Amino acid sequence: MKKPKWVVEKEQAKRVARAETIWLFGIHAVRDALVNPARTRVRLVVTKNALDRLGDAVAASGLEPEISDPRKFAAPIDPGSVHQGAALEVKPLNWGSLEERAVPAAASSVPPRIILLDQVTDPHNVGAILRSSEVFGALAVVGTERGAAPETGALAKTASGALERQPYVRVRNLAAAIETLQNMGYLVLGLDGEAETTIETSVAGRVNAPIALDLGAEGPGLRMKTKETVDQLVKISAAGAFGSLNVSNAAAVALYASLN
Amino acid sequence: MKKPKWVVEKEQAKRVARAETIWLFGIHAVRDALVNPARTRVRLVVTKNALDRLGDAVAASGLEPEISDPRKFAAPIDPGSVHQGAALEVKPLNWGSLEERAVPAAASSVPPRIILLDQVTDPHNVGAILRSSEVFGALAVVGTERGAAPETGALAKTASGALERQPYVRVRNLAAAIETLQNMGYLVLGLDGEAETTIETSVAGRVNAPIALDLGAEGPGLRMKTKETVDQLVKISAAGAFGSLNVSNAAAVALYASLN
Repeated sequence: MKKPKWVVEKEQAKRVARAETIWLFGIHAVRDALVNPARTRVRLVVTKNALDRLGDAVAASGLEPEISDPRKFAAPIDPGSVHQGAALEVKPLNWGSLEERAVPAAASSVPPRIILLDQVTDPHNVGAILRSSEVFGALAVVGTERGAAPETGALAKTASGALERQPYVRVRNLAAAIETLQNMGYLVLGLDGEAETTIETSVAGRVNAPIALDLGAEGPGLRMKTKETVDQLVKISAAGAFGSLNVSNAAAVALYASLN
Repeated sequence: MKKPKWVVEKEQAKRVARAETIWLFGIHAVRDALVNPARTRVRLVVTKNALDRLGDAVAASGLEPEISDPRKFAAPIDPGSVHQGAALEVKPLNWGSLEERAVPAAASSVPPRIILLDQVTDPHNVGAILRSSEVFGALAVVGTERGAAPETGALAKTASGALERQPYVRVRNLAAAIETLQNMGYLVLGLDGEAETTIETSVAGRVNAPIALDLGAEGPGLRMKTKETVDQLVKISAAGAFGSLNVSNAAAVALYASLN
């Protein structure tokens, strides 16, 4: 049976609304989004207890909080989420283009670094990578529009506030993004456990040059097209013969190694 | 109302049984536990599909697999667990004492490293730390009997096999463990974002010496007693003014930094 038109329209409207906003949760993620002037905020659902903890940030945001019973928390988030009594509906951030983000601020003393993610879909890994990227002063984390972790509550929670401050740029085509960076003078290194060169050898003598580090998902690693486009494949010099690093740990160590 | 004696006894027996075995899940974790000769295995529950993937490992283990319907998976694990159709009941591994583990094998070419965890309770973080420790050839990861993440299925899954190979030693008292290591000639460094010295400065010129790295939980950091017992507090030299690394990323970077 065909659905009545009004049902179809209502469902479409819901889908659009869902696509256009996301729910952040957890005290840290919500506070940082409340005080971020670039963030468009829609609804704030909090328990009394969480409101006490978020007091100043809520006041600064100008949002009217909706107080919720902790036992029946009224935000539409996954029941397993560790929300700590705070959930905030927001619009995704717009970080502009890769070209804009890849140019360091004139006053910056940190060598330009960019992290490229090739099909890294796990929000916890991407969240941790945003966090490390912020700590090490990387200009941006770049993922693809399809096949990368979208900006979600779980990602924001793991990023522990970094989602609000660390540019996360989505591009249509990763190989094209690599070429864009190469044209801007970036050395683009692909992390690959099977590589013969180490990242230390590759960056030696050019620590101050612009460098982009490309990491693939655990298991499949970098896609063939990505491997062919980067300037060089490199591995992290590690002592152990067994195992491989989790992708967020690999990103943190690679960033660190490229700066030291 | 007082519980009848037989109920109390039954509950106690259940608690003992629970404490003595754990359920590992996920293809990776189960396969690595099946082929680990040091692992005491009790029950294996698998879907037909998972059995195909684990074929050789199951045969080698000598266990009789219990085939389960994927839609009603019959292992007593958390329903949200990504078990991939494989669950294995095992006894925890016994890695012996810290003193035994802290002595490198005569043939080892890797400088002795040990990771100490001060109240790091999150199994995902500890799992990722075991994995990085294996990659960088650390001798052991040390946690306390209370207040550290126990060996669980979630920890094993994140460790992606490293739980079977990377010694995870539990001690009663972390300060005593630090003193034990100091008496064995270890330099024990406590990671602290507020420290004045960087880890690079501290390890310069003694990369080949035995070094232990002590990390605290995110938020509280190292406990006062731990800070007072370590030889030196150090920070990771990072460019960014904002944020701090996730504890597993901090462990990976600190290990890497101590070796390079």
